[in-house]
Amino acid sequence: MKNRNLVSITDYSKEDISEILRLAHLFEQKTNQRILENKVIASLFFEPSTRTRLSFESAINRLSGRVIGFSEAGSSSVSKGESLKDTIKTVANYSDLIIMRHPLEGSAKYAGEVSDVPVINAGDGANQHPTQTLLDLYSIYKTQGTLENLNIFLIGDLKYGRTVHSLLMAMSKYNPVFNFISHKKLRIPDEYKMFLHDLNIKYYEHTEFTDIISRADIMYMTRVQKERFSDPIEYEKTKDIYILRNNMLTDTKDNLKILHPLPRVNEINEDVDKNEKAYYFEQAKNGVYTRQAIISAILGLKPENN
Amino acid sequence: MKNRNLVSITDYSKEDISEILRLAHLFEQKTNQRILENKVIASLFFEPSTRTRLSFESAINRLSGRVIGFSEAGSSSVSKGESLKDTIKTVANYSDLIIMRHPLEGSAKYAGEVSDVPVINAGDGANQHPTQTLLDLYSIYKTQGTLENLNIFLIGDLKYGRTVHSLLMAMSKYNPVFNFISHKKLRIPDEYKMFLHDLNIKYYEHTEFTDIISRADIMYMTRVQKERFSDPIEYEKTKDIYILRNNMLTDTKDNLKILHPLPRVNEINEDVDKNEKAYYFEQAKNGVYTRQAIISAILGLKPENN
Amino acid sequence: MKNRNLVSITDYSKEDISEILRLAHLFEQKTNQRILENKVIASLFFEPSTRTRLSFESAINRLSGRVIGFSEAGSSSVSKGESLKDTIKTVANYSDLIIMRHPLEGSAKYAGEVSDVPVINAGDGANQHPTQTLLDLYSIYKTQGTLENLNIFLIGDLKYGRTVHSLLMAMSKYNPVFNFISHKKLRIPDEYKMFLHDLNIKYYEHTEFTDIISRADIMYMTRVQKERFSDPIEYEKTKDIYILRNNMLTDTKDNLKILHPLPRVNEINEDVDKNEKAYYFEQAKNGVYTRQAIISAILGLKPENN
Repeated sequence: MKNRNLVSITDYSKEDISEILRLAHLFEQKTNQRILENKVIASLFFEPSTRTRLSFESAINRLSGRVIGFSEAGSSSVSKGESLKDTIKTVANYSDLIIMRHPLEGSAKYAGEVSDVPVINAGDGANQHPTQTLLDLYSIYKTQGTLENLNIFLIGDLKYGRTVHSLLMAMSKYNPVFNFISHKKLRIPDEYKMFLHDLNIKYYEHTEFTDIISRADIMYMTRVQKERFSDPIEYEKTKDIYILRNNMLTDTKDNLKILHPLPRVNEINEDVDKNEKAYYFEQAKNGVYTRQAIISAILGLKPENN
Repeated sequence: MKNRNLVSITDYSKEDISEILRLAHLFEQKTNQRILENKVIASLFFEPSTRTRLSFESAINRLSGRVIGFSEAGSSSVSKGESLKDTIKTVANYSDLIIMRHPLEGSAKYAGEVSDVPVINAGDGANQHPTQTLLDLYSIYKTQGTLENLNIFLIGDLKYGRTVHSLLMAMSKYNPVFNFISHKKLRIPDEYKMFLHDLNIKYYEHTEFTDIISRADIMYMTRVQKERFSDPIEYEKTKDIYILRNNMLTDTKDNLKILHPLPRVNEINEDVDKNEKAYYFEQAKNGVYTRQAIISAILGLKPENN
Repeated sequence: MKNRNLVSITDYSKEDISEILRLAHLFEQKTNQRILENKVIASLFFEPSTRTRLSFESAINRLSGRVIGFSEAGSSSVSKGESLKDTIKTVANYSDLIIMRHPLEGSAKYAGEVSDVPVINAGDGANQHPTQTLLDLYSIYKTQGTLENLNIFLIGDLKYGRTVHSLLMAMSKYNPVFNFISHKKLRIPDEYKMFLHDLNIKYYEHTEFTDIISRADIMYMTRVQKERFSDPIEYEKTKDIYILRNNMLTDTKDNLKILHPLPRVNEINEDVDKNEKAYYFEQAKNGVYTRQAIISAILGLKPENN
């Protein structure tokens, strides 16, 4: 992975993923290290994000790295008419690695092509968000002891949700069964169903949120994102249909864990938070270790206790 | 104070305050130390503040700590509909301590209840701003040699000003006499007068800014804050009435010091700045040492020269 | 230069400039050093700037210094009606050095007068931007081996462009010939022509972008800045006239380097980027070393390998 861009989860092989999980485990045991001393990492968020940005910045700071950048396009030179290419080429002169979130699909790939330093995609529109997928994989591995042969439920916005698309593609390497639960207007796109079909991976589609969930090892909930809708009425109609409540969890499996990339709006009721199957806040914490793993792998650095 | 939230100045006993003043004095003698190495501190400013935020960030950086966060709500996930609870629970996973400013009264208390790491209130609306009060106490102690038996004048916006309310409550532990000078519409609220009455503390109310100030040991000036008014005309009428000018200071006591939490608009004329009784810029500097004291007390760390 | 403000390029003598170039060369050889440990530097950007801000912040972080500040006026106390004087006096209490960009001409000079710590002007409106000029000089020196006797072409917006004015004044110490190419409405102001005349420095004015450039050692291109125009139609009319294209460079000198302070809009066609005479991205990188030189000179610190 050294010196390679991370634009899409498909950039990483099964072996790459295993290495990231191994490194993340090491960083979880010792999150404060000095391996990024002398490194300046650019954190370029052309659209706001608390979670991803702060998680990256915590990961870097705990490894003694330094962060420069911006948290919204307004405080950048974009407003002066500068091209993304010029911004990236310039910032590459100031830093050892670029982490970028940008509203345009494909922007991360393009940035990786013009940059003289590696680029990590922290989300490019509705397209990809590979570091989220890697932290999801780490969370699944930690809680299930394996990535193999799991029954994965993907719930909510399966049409626009970039995190579910990337997770589906990554988990497909590990012989899963998928269950999709969504409003019929937010179904998983056909291209992903064909992808699964070609790999002989079983999947089931549901439009009702029923006791089918008793079979789940992982329930991956997603927010119905207002930003992805052009029609606000359509958004209001769909957002409240697939709400998970604590009393729905009674007959679920002991090993079930509920994941959510966060932020949530109301798709997981707050009464679920105290259930020990709720794992979304721990999942967020795993983001720090996973991002430490990704950054160190790309910069070719090893954890101290390796 | 270790591991406890600091939401209100009433969270700290007289002994706690003494300890903070002792620590602040040590940090003033050696402000650059390495005691926060490996600590990541979240600085969550849901509304802008130059002074408090930069003072905290200077305090942390001089102790070798690292800061993550945001300086306005716009670059956070609040705009995606996330609850304060979820934001706090997530950021608690990324940091060792949370410093929060938020426009809503009570938000800091709530954040402290849901957070897995300690929370310091850096101002919650018109409610509390305890680190300001502690730096005010340190400034009074440094300039007067004691906190006991002082004649404290509180001037300006005594109704909405959170800093005067907190200072009043804190100073009440030290047998003061209070003089209040304000427009009749900006009087100190009755609850504080009852509070003083119950403690047998003398106070006097004035609506004129006269030579009564010749008795003052401390004059604590405050800005009439536009943000707290719903009616802009009411603001315009009251803001210019209680302006301190240098020629008013002729017959004041030698030990008098003029404090102001800043920013000022025009309530202290610039010709006062050169008077050696003007102490507001040094007071701001004391904020760095006091915040170093508070952070190290909460994290259970000791200054190197302790 | 120790402890002196850097407000205008005219603050530095020929000897000062030589010392900065010497230091920049040392920092280029070893950009990661620990000489700013324990230093907190305030980066106050009252208007947005990716390049200058990130370049400064990279320079500081690579020297182990710490940065506090803001990247736009909106997250400062200016919105509460605070004067620039009070903001500067307060921030001087939190930091060892202030770097400031402000939209008002003269603001940097004023800030330097009221501050208790040195101030570096990172651009004050259409007035001065001395650290840009020093990195331009370093770029010229590095590519030409000398600053003396060069034929310098200044192209684009010569009326409003602060960088060309400062570069003209600085280069005038080194016996140059100047060629100015601009629309007649964006000509170099008379005061600069008189300045050159008094020094017996030759200059030529052109309104056409012709093969005259075959004589150039340095072509310094500038953006026609929308922000400086009150009339958007005037801007649209002038911005596309002086575009440099790769096929125009065929008969230029071997030692020619094309500089641009960036961001560019379209005044240098992208097909120039691959030409080895294009130097603007390397020029941006020189900004890190030059700013390390300036900061260390002002703080009286020496590079480790000095």
